[in-house]
Amino acid sequence: MLTEAQRDQFDVVLVSPRNPLNIGAAARAMANFGFARMKVVAPYAPHWREARSAVGAPELLKDARETATLAEAVADCALVIGTGTLAHRKPEQPVISLPSLFSHVPRALAGAGRIAMVFGPEKHGLTREDLSYCHLLVQIPTDARQPSMNLGQAVAVCLYELAIRALPGAENSHEAIPPETEIAPHAVASGTLDALAELIEKAMAAADYSPRAMRAANHHDLLLLLRRLNLNSADTKRALGLFRRILWRLERR
Amino acid sequence: MLTEAQRDQFDVVLVSPRNPLNIGAAARAMANFGFARMKVVAPYAPHWREARSAVGAPELLKDARETATLAEAVADCALVIGTGTLAHRKPEQPVISLPSLFSHVPRALAGAGRIAMVFGPEKHGLTREDLSYCHLLVQIPTDARQPSMNLGQAVAVCLYELAIRALPGAENSHEAIPPETEIAPHAVASGTLDALAELIEKAMAAADYSPRAMRAANHHDLLLLLRRLNLNSADTKRALGLFRRILWRLERR
Repeated sequence: MLTEAQRDQFDVVLVSPRNPLNIGAAARAMANFGFARMKVVAPYAPHWREARSAVGAPELLKDARETATLAEAVADCALVIGTGTLAHRKPEQPVISLPSLFSHVPRALAGAGRIAMVFGPEKHGLTREDLSYCHLLVQIPTDARQPSMNLGQAVAVCLYELAIRALPGAENSHEAIPPETEIAPHAVASGTLDALAELIEKAMAAADYSPRAMRAANHHDLLLLLRRLNLNSADTKRALGLFRRILWRLERR
Repeated sequence: MLTEAQRDQFDVVLVSPRNPLNIGAAARAMANFGFARMKVVAPYAPHWREARSAVGAPELLKDARETATLAEAVADCALVIGTGTLAHRKPEQPVISLPSLFSHVPRALAGAGRIAMVFGPEKHGLTREDLSYCHLLVQIPTDARQPSMNLGQAVAVCLYELAIRALPGAENSHEAIPPETEIAPHAVASGTLDALAELIEKAMAAADYSPRAMRAANHHDLLLLLRRLNLNSADTKRALGLFRRILWRLERR
């Protein structure tokens, strides 16, 4: 089993949840498996209030942090894990099946960075833009005839899967999967990558790199690219310095 | 993963469920993980009718068998597994933790008999009398501060645990992790990376990014960095395009 300190490295992030019962159920599953940190992105205000004031709502729901965007919610996270069925999309990140998830997190747990598990809205799940903030996607191995899970149940299953695992070397690691395939925790917080992306985009604009109509697509590609490259903190500092300098020069013309 | 025939050996038995939403959620979790046989013991009639007639209720809910007693529901089962938190009781049967459950079922799966997973009512769980029909009890490893799970979520977690396991000897046991971490051959020829490095260095010089004395060190770092990033050919093309544009603009001043 994960220790309490290890569980506290996880944020459960709900993106635009609609149904107050589902929000309550997600919070309850967190309490059941000992996870305490919830973040909620752009909730529908009346339902969010209702969920938080419900009788018996877990304390963690009252402590939940509300943010306007997913970028903000995961800004301090070194590993961002998206969830979903992906039936209708071809994701650009590595996709792993939930039972293999744990083999990907030990290095992130060993570091100081936070780890986000991101759940999309009930109706359609995470959007393509949401997914661009994720380092990897985890898929719950559901039946092809009924792939889509209820939000509260999806949270319960994912947190169960994380909670029961033990790190290699811990006692009762009943499934010590060798950590070979693990995706390294990212050395650079998501918010720093966003700052770099913004700077690069400004330089692109200042250099008239592409027509205005292409900017949204470029923005999306850039977010994905920066996560895929796994820059270390020295790389990032350097790239920030270089693009700041380039931008200053281009604007001074 | 269990085969469909193996899943069909399981009955999910709900004892006196009260809340129609919970009944629906249990049925949905069954559909998600490919289990089709539900039995319901002494349900509260109006709520049972409501759950079965709900919009989008899975087919298996309509096919569910209703019995008056648990004894009747499990009469044809060779292995009866009770679920619960057992916080307030000292059961007389062996108790195992959910992650170890699967090691107890292969012999039952090899035989012809059916296997029942029994879930108690929302409020108090299975009674002592209910438990007397169980061969073993399975406990979901929940946090001591919030041990009791919502019915629909408990069903989801238990069925997930069963569904992901493979019998010993079966292929596709999920432990066979594909060798993703193997270092892929680089998609971009070394010479192309050198061309990109040269262009970036020219942009750095044009922007006066660093003193002339640093250039040799920067050159070396840049070569290493570009190899470490493992850019694909589209990334490389784009980076070439961007730095060509930036350089042209900087030099035009």
